[in-house]
Amino acid sequence: MADKVRIALDAMGGDHGPGVVVAGAELALSRHPDSEFLLFGNASAIAPLLDARPELKARSRLTHTEVAVRMEDKPSQALRYGRWKSSMWLSIDAVKKAEADMAVSAGNTGALMAMSKFNLKTLPGIERPAIAALWPTLRGESIVLDVGASIGADADHLVDLALMGAATARILFGLPRPTVGLLNIGVEEAKGLEQVREAGRILREENFADVEYKGFVEGDDIGHGKVDVVVTEGFAGNIALKTAEGTARQIGEYLKGAMTRSLSARIGYLFAQSAFRQLRERMDPRRANGGVFLGLNGIVIKSHGGTDAEGFAAAIELGHGVVREELLARIRTALAGHVRRRPEPVDQLLGGAAS
Amino acid sequence: MADKVRIALDAMGGDHGPGVVVAGAELALSRHPDSEFLLFGNASAIAPLLDARPELKARSRLTHTEVAVRMEDKPSQALRYGRWKSSMWLSIDAVKKAEADMAVSAGNTGALMAMSKFNLKTLPGIERPAIAALWPTLRGESIVLDVGASIGADADHLVDLALMGAATARILFGLPRPTVGLLNIGVEEAKGLEQVREAGRILREENFADVEYKGFVEGDDIGHGKVDVVVTEGFAGNIALKTAEGTARQIGEYLKGAMTRSLSARIGYLFAQSAFRQLRERMDPRRANGGVFLGLNGIVIKSHGGTDAEGFAAAIELGHGVVREELLARIRTALAGHVRRRPEPVDQLLGGAAS
Repeated sequence: MADKVRIALDAMGGDHGPGVVVAGAELALSRHPDSEFLLFGNASAIAPLLDARPELKARSRLTHTEVAVRMEDKPSQALRYGRWKSSMWLSIDAVKKAEADMAVSAGNTGALMAMSKFNLKTLPGIERPAIAALWPTLRGESIVLDVGASIGADADHLVDLALMGAATARILFGLPRPTVGLLNIGVEEAKGLEQVREAGRILREENFADVEYKGFVEGDDIGHGKVDVVVTEGFAGNIALKTAEGTARQIGEYLKGAMTRSLSARIGYLFAQSAFRQLRERMDPRRANGGVFLGLNGIVIKSHGGTDAEGFAAAIELGHGVVREELLARIRTALAGHVRRRPEPVDQLLGGAAS
Repeated sequence: MADKVRIALDAMGGDHGPGVVVAGAELALSRHPDSEFLLFGNASAIAPLLDARPELKARSRLTHTEVAVRMEDKPSQALRYGRWKSSMWLSIDAVKKAEADMAVSAGNTGALMAMSKFNLKTLPGIERPAIAALWPTLRGESIVLDVGASIGADADHLVDLALMGAATARILFGLPRPTVGLLNIGVEEAKGLEQVREAGRILREENFADVEYKGFVEGDDIGHGKVDVVVTEGFAGNIALKTAEGTARQIGEYLKGAMTRSLSARIGYLFAQSAFRQLRERMDPRRANGGVFLGLNGIVIKSHGGTDAEGFAAAIELGHGVVREELLARIRTALAGHVRRRPEPVDQLLGGAAS
């Protein structure tokens, strides 16, 4: 294992650009002194931010480019004007050239996926990459994938997702044989989508060494933490993720309203302040910020576009963890054991999830 | 409009059977004195419960049957042994024979849908019924459909769901032209599923009199209450619904944990008790209990299987509201305006959602 982790940063990505990226890198460095950064973006915006942070500056190299991918562009547009020269492309390219161990961007998700796929290519046997999200649960955390890289999945693709998700869970949660469930509606064998049932049959029959297959799970099992890895195709996965985020925000609003409505509630709030702080931290979407792109010849981490420095640091640290434990090598080993049934046509590919 | 609302009850449905059903009917009657009940189920279990409630008994007629549909059976099994004679079938049959204005059951969802479809048949132009759920939002409530009646939907089916959902929202929320959104991933035109995009084109071009089409919505827009009606096919809809339920439960657990962890938190909890009670009520899944089956020649309401008397009463009252306002007539009118593009093969039908 190398003695440092080299991190390429798309400094122009996200709603807030270099301010959040550089501040996030500073936080991540303070917690992981073995980090080194390659920053890509507009030097006139980034250099002053580095000058104000001598320790970070000493561990960083800045490469200037004028081109930045816009949040609202379609992947094809972004590829057209941003290939070879945008800050997003250059950060991915640093991974490709083995100058960096991973790339992190808070930019346009579809563009980041399209560029990653174009430049890094997919692993043998993998047609479509996936985005894996960390999901806080009552038992700790689970991995949910795919949360929006592509729509639809045949049984083989679902099995690949299970293998890649389990390899990630082994590293992030330190589990020898993570439990895996297939997201479905109704838990009985006869229910749900045919390809999900078929994937269940394969997982049960193959009984892969690194996957403890637990059968179907439903939407409410995710937050309960019933399994370590929840596998689904990108449309349903993205809707589950966003719906959970929306529900958490909604309840946060209810809580705020309830705690300010009467004098005694406000007094109660004062007494319970530290408990509320704890609750806020548990519900904090920044805690679990960062989606890992899986299925590529390289590690790319997507940070939420609207996050702040703390959230961006969490995305960097997520990548740091998987790089340190050599996620890619483990995924390659896991996938090698899956004999795919038939070359099926891929129904639809898109740079799906919004940032 | 009739001077009473006649409600057929599957008294054996749900995890708790007649105890919850009869107590729920009593609550509903106290709030809607124009209700009359036809109860179907095991007389030896139900009669004593009615005897203990003279006012309810005076407004009820009990029909004995020994057959009850089990919660764990597949729709086809339930149809085999439960057709013609189960409490579930008989309550639906009362609607068919115009002896009741609606049927309510807390039983096996798939069986209830299969029997409803078999007995009541679908409305002209509708191949597959849908389940519409009431979803509490920051703005009040929205209708989300389909939450699990069938998997997959072509563009025409999505448009039908929009028309039926909007007709329901007009009645339940008293809105002249409810806003409607199509659930998708990413809000830009170019994103998401082809059939969802096509449905969006139809809704925009046709500009139906009773539907204010607002474009795509994402998972986090549901809880925010961005639109009155959220339209999606049953797989994604069921996963969204269950994921939101799971997230609410998860945050409730966090809250409980946080409020009992220290002395000052417990003191704060005492002061803020009424605020917490209010919060619990807002988060109470019983408040929005009841899915309306849409697309059938009759009104069938599905109550959550695990609910209590208060929740079952909410399901009855939901049906009471739509019957009073003649939902069926309005849906027929709305559907008549939709010229379907092409007869597309229906990919898969199932009695999907677990109870």
